Amino acid sequence: MATASGPFRVGLLGHGTVGSAFRRLLESRAEAIGAEVGRQPEISGVLTTRDGDFAEILERSELVVELIGGTEPAREYVLSAMEAGRHVVTANKQLLSQFGEELFAAARAGGVQLRFEAAVAGVVPAIRVIGETLAAAHIERVHGIVNGTTNYILTEMARTGATYEEALAEAQELGYAESDPSEDVTGRDAAAKMAILARLAFNAPVRLDQVSYEGIERLTPDDIAYAKELGLSLKLVGSAERVDGGIAVFVHPAFLYGDHPLASVNGAFNAVTVESPTITEITLSGPGAGGPQTASAVLGDVISAMIPPPSLPPPAVEQPVVTDVEFSFYLYLEVADRPGVLAQVAEILGMQEVSIKSVVQRGLGDDARLVMVMHPVLESKFRAAVDLISRLDFVRSEPRVIRVIEEAFEAAA
Amino acid sequence: MATASGPFRVGLLGHGTVGSAFRRLLESRAEAIGAEVGRQPEISGVLTTRDGDFAEILERSELVVELIGGTEPAREYVLSAMEAGRHVVTANKQLLSQFGEELFAAARAGGVQLRFEAAVAGVVPAIRVIGETLAAAHIERVHGIVNGTTNYILTEMARTGATYEEALAEAQELGYAESDPSEDVTGRDAAAKMAILARLAFNAPVRLDQVSYEGIERLTPDDIAYAKELGLSLKLVGSAERVDGGIAVFVHPAFLYGDHPLASVNGAFNAVTVESPTITEITLSGPGAGGPQTASAVLGDVISAMIPPPSLPPPAVEQPVVTDVEFSFYLYLEVADRPGVLAQVAEILGMQEVSIKSVVQRGLGDDARLVMVMHPVLESKFRAAVDLISRLDFVRSEPRVIRVIEEAFEAAA
Repeated sequence: MATASGPFRVGLLGHGTVGSAFRRLLESRAEAIGAEVGRQPEISGVLTTRDGDFAEILERSELVVELIGGTEPAREYVLSAMEAGRHVVTANKQLLSQFGEELFAAARAGGVQLRFEAAVAGVVPAIRVIGETLAAAHIERVHGIVNGTTNYILTEMARTGATYEEALAEAQELGYAESDPSEDVTGRDAAAKMAILARLAFNAPVRLDQVSYEGIERLTPDDIAYAKELGLSLKLVGSAERVDGGIAVFVHPAFLYGDHPLASVNGAFNAVTVESPTITEITLSGPGAGGPQTASAVLGDVISAMIPPPSLPPPAVEQPVVTDVEFSFYLYLEVADRPGVLAQVAEILGMQEVSIKSVVQRGLGDDARLVMVMHPVLESKFRAAVDLISRLDFVRSEPRVIRVIEEAFEAAA
Repeated sequence: MATASGPFRVGLLGHGTVGSAFRRLLESRAEAIGAEVGRQPEISGVLTTRDGDFAEILERSELVVELIGGTEPAREYVLSAMEAGRHVVTANKQLLSQFGEELFAAARAGGVQLRFEAAVAGVVPAIRVIGETLAAAHIERVHGIVNGTTNYILTEMARTGATYEEALAEAQELGYAESDPSEDVTGRDAAAKMAILARLAFNAPVRLDQVSYEGIERLTPDDIAYAKELGLSLKLVGSAERVDGGIAVFVHPAFLYGDHPLASVNGAFNAVTVESPTITEITLSGPGAGGPQTASAVLGDVISAMIPPPSLPPPAVEQPVVTDVEFSFYLYLEVADRPGVLAQVAEILGMQEVSIKSVVQRGLGDDARLVMVMHPVLESKFRAAVDLISRLDFVRSEPRVIRVIEEAFEAAA
């Protein structure tokens, strides 16, 4: 067994999309993690369907990451690792939703950690928030959009009027759905995830076979058209709640009122809403799956297993605080309605290297309103241009400036 | 000093709205917490402006909760407590954003925890997610709507066309804005919160006085009208990001594209979006403030200080999984277009105690479509009614049933 100093040795079971993304991410972040937590993680061995020996990898590892999926042999490996005193991190929803209590008992008996943030909603920290942050709240209900494939299909049906079959075919073409999509479209994948969330939210041993689920295969464009007409969104929603006499866990297509926090969750995104009397509700959302995102959730679990989560941030490192940075700007001008006004404004903007993205001009008696949105530009340059523009004789009131923020997901990509 | 067994003794500094809500919540949850973590928290003393002695309370406590607000004497109390080896939980954004490094250093020197989830975005777990969960992610940018007062005002301006002054007056009347609203409407409150988030996201010692901020006082209905015309939302947005040469932290009014996860955050809600190459983006949202919500965040911190966050859920307790529960249902029927159809359907629903909330009937040649939404009803009763309805001779195809989920916030209240 590895010693408690030197590199933190991580055995990797499974080397598919998530496994290889995890390996790359770990290797690229190892040095930074070492600087922060005192030890660098390193991959001590990889088990694939062709290569590697489980017993050897186990011997060389302090922690085992299980990314094989499915129940066997994943279950056997995970149990053996915990019996041998190794921490386990897994993204395996089937395993957790079918054998959760057995696994938790083995972790307790072995005195090791079993972490599984990536099993539900990818990088959206639903597991940690429900299991740790909300330990003080008496959770009444959890609603979730926890399957990105079906949410993508329903979003496309709503957006384009496509049938279920058409939207599924498109999702398959774009890689959002598998060639055999049945786990996703029948609701079974979402049911496994809801079983795990219900286990944590209510501390009840909910198993997948106790979750009633219904898929999206029979939904029609008519259903979606009626939803739109009534101001509703149609989603595949998982719900887990306390009811008289126990708890109830379901997955089914549901109409959400427009104000519901899940109603605006579109495309392959996931989101989870947690309700309790003390917190009212909080919602967590983000990309539900994808190799790099899932790998990031797995690595977060590995780091948590290496060190207890810090109650304090690490000592700060001085970094310059920059105050002149690029923004997109909106500029609102009240101007005299006469020829050449737009040309002069545009010329001054151009002199300061400010590039115009869109313009709306509208007459208002003798005056006009000029509303412009710029491409991103250094604030100092834009302000210099606005200062010059404000002194033009045809400008009738102080120019108004507001920043514009693009869609986050694209900006981050 | 209290011993490490028996009740976990919590000294409470401050007994205003949040302080008294915290005390009530702690007392109502003490037993459940004790069952879960092995020790029951109890209030060992309360310091108010009139009553209590700080030194005495300190002596009797293992942890001090600071809910006085402002910088002095809160700073002195918090430093003294940590020097004396007591953990501290605080909701004080002024303190953290102005004296953060001094406080973190004192916590490190005293070997104690300093937790402050409630200082930013109330019960929305932004601090924990950025500081712990995303430890593996290299965060590039944080965007936040972190002031509920201004978000309420802007939402009302957009909804009703009110001026800033009108919306502010309404917010004051409803208790969403203070009689002196300047901390909120100038952006200074949001700036303090963004300084704290930037400190955690980038590990840089950002102070409030390094954050550029601009408020909402000069925004006009015209700005909001243009936003609507262009498909944008106008929000008071905090941003903290890595830029060439350092980091940048701002608070200012900004237009958000309709698809941005913050664009649909309305009313007194808060939300934080975190972007990084590995996670793309995740968004956390919920009620930003309010006594019970803030108290819940404070109690969550107290529990975390009592025990290391569990890496495993507690042993499960068997609870019945109920499968017949109440839902609102939508029912879609294709029927022959002749008199008496609606009456017969309604009669069968009524016999099963299913109450109709809304009906849309629409002709379609010889047929008609009947779309109904029901008030919540036990699924078994509704299914029995649908089964009877499906056998009526004028029903032309299999009835279609989809569940309807109401707005979460109302449902939870």
